Amino acid sequence: MSVHAARRDRLRALVADATGSDVLLVTHLPNVQYLTGFSGSNAVLAVGSDGQDLFGTDGRYVIQAAQQVPDLVPIVDRDTLRTVVAALGSGRTVAVESTMTLAQGAVVDAERGTFAVADGLVERLRAVKDDTELAALERACAITSEAIEALAGEMRVGDREVDLARRLEQLFGELGADDRSFETIVGSGPNSAIGHHEPGPRRLAPGDLIVVDAGALVDGYHADMTRTFVVGEPDAWQVEVHDLVLRAQTSARERYRDGADLREVDAAARDLVADAGHAEHFDHGLGHGVGLEIHEPPFLGPRSTGTMSAGMAITVEPGVYLPGRGGVRIEDTLVVTPGGPRVLTPAARGLRVVG
Amino acid sequence: MSVHAARRDRLRALVADATGSDVLLVTHLPNVQYLTGFSGSNAVLAVGSDGQDLFGTDGRYVIQAAQQVPDLVPIVDRDTLRTVVAALGSGRTVAVESTMTLAQGAVVDAERGTFAVADGLVERLRAVKDDTELAALERACAITSEAIEALAGEMRVGDREVDLARRLEQLFGELGADDRSFETIVGSGPNSAIGHHEPGPRRLAPGDLIVVDAGALVDGYHADMTRTFVVGEPDAWQVEVHDLVLRAQTSARERYRDGADLREVDAAARDLVADAGHAEHFDHGLGHGVGLEIHEPPFLGPRSTGTMSAGMAITVEPGVYLPGRGGVRIEDTLVVTPGGPRVLTPAARGLRVVG
Repeated sequence: MSVHAARRDRLRALVADATGSDVLLVTHLPNVQYLTGFSGSNAVLAVGSDGQDLFGTDGRYVIQAAQQVPDLVPIVDRDTLRTVVAALGSGRTVAVESTMTLAQGAVVDAERGTFAVADGLVERLRAVKDDTELAALERACAITSEAIEALAGEMRVGDREVDLARRLEQLFGELGADDRSFETIVGSGPNSAIGHHEPGPRRLAPGDLIVVDAGALVDGYHADMTRTFVVGEPDAWQVEVHDLVLRAQTSARERYRDGADLREVDAAARDLVADAGHAEHFDHGLGHGVGLEIHEPPFLGPRSTGTMSAGMAITVEPGVYLPGRGGVRIEDTLVVTPGGPRVLTPAARGLRVVG
Repeated sequence: MSVHAARRDRLRALVADATGSDVLLVTHLPNVQYLTGFSGSNAVLAVGSDGQDLFGTDGRYVIQAAQQVPDLVPIVDRDTLRTVVAALGSGRTVAVESTMTLAQGAVVDAERGTFAVADGLVERLRAVKDDTELAALERACAITSEAIEALAGEMRVGDREVDLARRLEQLFGELGADDRSFETIVGSGPNSAIGHHEPGPRRLAPGDLIVVDAGALVDGYHADMTRTFVVGEPDAWQVEVHDLVLRAQTSARERYRDGADLREVDAAARDLVADAGHAEHFDHGLGHGVGLEIHEPPFLGPRSTGTMSAGMAITVEPGVYLPGRGGVRIEDTLVVTPGGPRVLTPAARGLRVVG
């Protein structure tokens, strides 16, 4: 049995209990990819509790579907969703994913009259990675770690943020990545204090903090990592903020283990930052799952509920941002194990001087 | 009045007639960006036919919202959609976009009890570009055209597809682009016959066709262009297929003018390809709008309805793909004018020999 068929069977066992329906209609594309291997831009999968699955796509993807999904005969139609829903027949009740659009919901409604809505069912399975997934994530993270260290060695005063971002992505490719896993962030000087800065024409200058937040993509799996550098010898405030963030990251990181409470892990970092007077300068969650998406469950923040399970791949990324001056973020991708965290992004975390 | 406020006024004039409601809730992020300038990842906009607009985001984007949306005071809340909907008050009826998810729809439903669904209203406005938009698209396309020509001059036997893709994106940046506008396609040899090939480790070899399909991103606007090259002197079949695709592209391109019927323009290219016996080897639409998204209305294909209007920015991209052997696609981004097409991607279209 293929890894994808085995995943469908794990989902199948949950469908009736979790949705009260006979069939779950999967339309969120990363979920379809997880359950079939298909990576194209149009696909619908119906997973039946009775063991019957239907897979649909359109004519552009016939060859790709045959290669990636050898164990399902595709329904090929431009009006993919309607055709798959119609093919389910009238005897079975249907649930859809809450990520479905209202326009898609209207199609299902027109064909079925009624349907249930399921929230995050496939995402829950995806949160715990299997060995195939961990192998891809490990490679993506190892490439990311090596490339960011190499980029740091190349950074010079006068380099533009945007060129450093493109250079990093080139290094990802040379080291074996398929692509980047999200838009590379290189924020220098005051831009390092902007959480999701889009790299621009600003040039590195002495005294800059530089936040590099990036990841490589391997076999559909998304690495995520951040390091902060300084151009020339750091000022006292830069050392102080970097030390604080590193202490917060270490405190949280050591708690990534099977059974850990998500909110408590977030607090382990956040309380240290708050005690240093920077509560309002750490304005995002502590971490998030990574896998076939760059942001996926679980999400760690002050309002999180739930616990970690062995096999989850989660980032740990506290930051402190001083508007107009600069910011520091330190981020690793970890795998949760019974005994603690396994770090996939091993690059040194100290405040490295570049330039 | 800002360009964004003027766009909201144009939408405002349509809301009541098109939706039967007092307020349109805009949640599709490119639509929010079009109407406010905001480029972050969480935002909701309510446009009222009575002149009252509400804009919501969360705490991560307070500074960005102040910079990008100076003319609206943001409602800042983690539970952005619910808070904006609640703030609408009880006296007004609400329509939402059909791209909204069922999960978002449940939030609106819980707050309002009932709502209408509007399909593609903002997208219809966006299809015709204003001068601000055309200026950004022109720059994005000029960069794309220049970079693809430069890349062709650098290609050598033995180069890997993935490295050429990254190199092209680096050229985009050096020429002034903010980023790429979508995942760069470099397909060589048999991979050139795969419509959405992800560039990989394959190395250029003598006799390869190479399809390069890419675009630069400038100020949020997405260029799109394709050229096909050959490594060394082409075989007769390669010349023949390239000539056919270029004739089809030229035939369609000349028809991009105000009032042109979308289906007839598609047929102008498709019929030539079919007459040459390659109907089944051109398995996608002829073109699509570009702007704040890489694929947006209008869409040109055999089932299209509607006509072109002056100011639309649309690609023209016929292709012929011979599985296992190779493919050819030639694509430009055009602006529709009363007198005909204005080409934004001027690079030569002939079958250029590289390597």
